Amino acid sequence: MYKLYHHILCPFSRKVRVLLAAKSLDFDLVVEKFWERRRDFIAMNVAGTIPVLFDNSEGYSVCGSSVIVEYIEEKHQNTKNFLGDSASQRAESRRLQHWFDERFYNQVVKRILNERYFNRYLTGISEPNSDILRKARHNLSIHLNYISYLTEHKKYLASNQITIADIAAACQISVLDYFGDINWQHYENVRNWYVLVKSHKFFNAILQDRIPSVEPPPYYSKLDF
Amino acid sequence: MYKLYHHILCPFSRKVRVLLAAKSLDFDLVVEKFWERRRDFIAMNVAGTIPVLFDNSEGYSVCGSSVIVEYIEEKHQNTKNFLGDSASQRAESRRLQHWFDERFYNQVVKRILNERYFNRYLTGISEPNSDILRKARHNLSIHLNYISYLTEHKKYLASNQITIADIAAACQISVLDYFGDINWQHYENVRNWYVLVKSHKFFNAILQDRIPSVEPPPYYSKLDF
Repeated sequence: MYKLYHHILCPFSRKVRVLLAAKSLDFDLVVEKFWERRRDFIAMNVAGTIPVLFDNSEGYSVCGSSVIVEYIEEKHQNTKNFLGDSASQRAESRRLQHWFDERFYNQVVKRILNERYFNRYLTGISEPNSDILRKARHNLSIHLNYISYLTEHKKYLASNQITIADIAAACQISVLDYFGDINWQHYENVRNWYVLVKSHKFFNAILQDRIPSVEPPPYYSKLDF
Repeated sequence: MYKLYHHILCPFSRKVRVLLAAKSLDFDLVVEKFWERRRDFIAMNVAGTIPVLFDNSEGYSVCGSSVIVEYIEEKHQNTKNFLGDSASQRAESRRLQHWFDERFYNQVVKRILNERYFNRYLTGISEPNSDILRKARHNLSIHLNYISYLTEHKKYLASNQITIADIAAACQISVLDYFGDINWQHYENVRNWYVLVKSHKFFNAILQDRIPSVEPPPYYSKLDF
């Protein structure tokens, strides 16, 4: 039904993969080395970013993870809904999706991912910049405390139901966790929430992928740690 | 019905103002000096950003311009729709909204607005950094050429109907135009499209506001220039 152009360490691609799996929709994965700016890929998405979802039944592509989320939710209204039922829940799940996609990604994940992976394997700079990592980790602690606060009186981030907010946040976190960058002992509430999200079968597939020459910590794809 | 916390030079606040006016919805404007991080405002939106829409009838606030757009479109489905009718049109208008809200804003508008206004009037740095302005103007030309390309065979950016893509793009551009930063003579197609957007009565209100001690160019709020 769908073809998803993605990269296994891209948190936005992960978000769409999890959503498609959660709604039991069929899709094929195509790894896109977006940094190579492949001509046919740029023709699909002039921004050159992933994820891009190609809808085989319609013959066109949908670009960008939050645009894909709205597209999928509108097109498959007979499946479980991950935006929320009431207007206020939908406003809250979308607010938090944006929070983790933009703020958390730009202040934390993008920086760590560049230092741990892209600079190292794609541009040949071998040592992560410790100053950048330190600042990113400082920002990380603020965001983890925010997750802790949000889940104090609720099961999930936006409500007692799992929504796109949890999927967006957990996908960003899963990328950091691949590199062992989260000290779970300091964040018990966050760990409990993350284990709860991970315990959904539809979340599990993204945790099985491995990149060559970097093994994640042993607890990465498990439910106990 | 609504209360909109905004700032007159904020392109995202402008986008929401235009959408509310376009849908003939009642709203009061509250100027929010978001940089002061007012306690009651942070309680409404912990991110401390504008716009925030307070829904008087429901008693809660909706944070962030793209979240507000979805909220308004879902709540007022009996009014003219600015996302588009078909699934592909909606994907395209949302893709372009995101393009102008994130890429265009970060690469161009944020930088020019900081140099022309916020640094000058809020932090006391009197001279704009010419290096930053030059880079922003270089990026601006790329985006204006993209608008020119998009409108070559269509009346508006996403289709022949005005959508949130046009509103988002035109609001970002209107802020640059306040400071005279667009050389319209070099971009005839873009000018024609912008005049077309401006000619909608619902777009006009945002062009009437003035900030103290900075007058926009004479053509700023007019349809001919």
